[in-house]
Amino acid sequence: MLKASKKISEKTIERLSIYRRYLKNLQKKGQARVYSHELSKTVAGTAAQVRRDLMALGCSGCSSKGYEVEALITEISDLLDFSDREKVALIGVGNLGRAVLGYFSGKTDNFEIVAAFDCDSTKIDRVICGRRCYNMNQLNEIIPHHNIFTAILAVPAEVAEKVANQLIDAGIKAILNFAPVNINAQNNVFIQNIDMTMALEKTIFFSRQISPAKEGQQ
Amino acid sequence: MLKASKKISEKTIERLSIYRRYLKNLQKKGQARVYSHELSKTVAGTAAQVRRDLMALGCSGCSSKGYEVEALITEISDLLDFSDREKVALIGVGNLGRAVLGYFSGKTDNFEIVAAFDCDSTKIDRVICGRRCYNMNQLNEIIPHHNIFTAILAVPAEVAEKVANQLIDAGIKAILNFAPVNINAQNNVFIQNIDMTMALEKTIFFSRQISPAKEGQQ
Repeated sequence: MLKASKKISEKTIERLSIYRRYLKNLQKKGQARVYSHELSKTVAGTAAQVRRDLMALGCSGCSSKGYEVEALITEISDLLDFSDREKVALIGVGNLGRAVLGYFSGKTDNFEIVAAFDCDSTKIDRVICGRRCYNMNQLNEIIPHHNIFTAILAVPAEVAEKVANQLIDAGIKAILNFAPVNINAQNNVFIQNIDMTMALEKTIFFSRQISPAKEGQQ
Repeated sequence: MLKASKKISEKTIERLSIYRRYLKNLQKKGQARVYSHELSKTVAGTAAQVRRDLMALGCSGCSSKGYEVEALITEISDLLDFSDREKVALIGVGNLGRAVLGYFSGKTDNFEIVAAFDCDSTKIDRVICGRRCYNMNQLNEIIPHHNIFTAILAVPAEVAEKVANQLIDAGIKAILNFAPVNINAQNNVFIQNIDMTMALEKTIFFSRQISPAKEGQQ
């Protein structure tokens, strides 16, 4: 499985995650089969792309009946999920960190935020949103102890790069970064940046391009 | 300006937003000039790409001295910013919506979340994180009244598509969607999806690919 999955691209992994969420909803509604063109709408893609993505997993559908929903969920989960729930650390328990904690808590069976870290002494050793908050200087002890390889970074931009390096030193292999600064990929570490400010500025830019009322004012 | 900016791609707009944030930091530190290779690091790109992006704005640097920081900020702001602060609506004032409100409040001079909406009667007509929370059935009245063209969607997945359509009916031209479901682009409306669950699943997947301790277990 590992060798095969190494060949699957980042974009395919993104789409498989989205297909699976949609398939689980279909399953809840009792729908047993699904066509590739229906799945393609979830990612604004084409039916041919869906079939290629699923082919990479070894799944083939039937042109008249589509794919079996349950079988697809199993195949995607075999690729995306680890046998145990993945343990994740949250770094930075400010407004954004707390929201991330609330958002992901009990969200899925596949992962769990098991530890939070901050450098604010009023937060350390407290339980925040159900998670113990540790001191940043305990990273090297707690991260390996819990076998944590994934971290969510929700710290201010000024310290993000430094904290990312501390995480990597502590054994973290992949970082989901919410700090408003791009952290560049490093050797053998995966970085996924989510830049909310940039996304909002871009959205506003295109609202202006489209809005007819504003054209005269620009 | 509008005609020229129409030709600028989504990806360029993303990079210009990131360059500007970096340039503002340089300005605070008193740095007057910047080279393209320095800016390229902020987006994990190349110096040539930076020069092309800035050329699209009509900015040219000097190979020995680089670009003037202040002039670049002005040029990028002329493109990205509207003369007034852009008014933005937030839909959904749950955990995530509140975090978004907290995160963006007072963040920049360019935009402001001026109204929040929810369907939970315990939230309606209250002031939450400094913003008045309106009833969802007031969308058609409040959105045009405040000249709002941009909305942030932080509602549950099940209702996201329906609420997006209500927003479009009320005059919204661009949506930043945090709901864990892709909303497909519609005619003359810009949709930017931020899928936090997918991003975390992807990050976990790659942490497993990299983590040597786990290879034997997969």
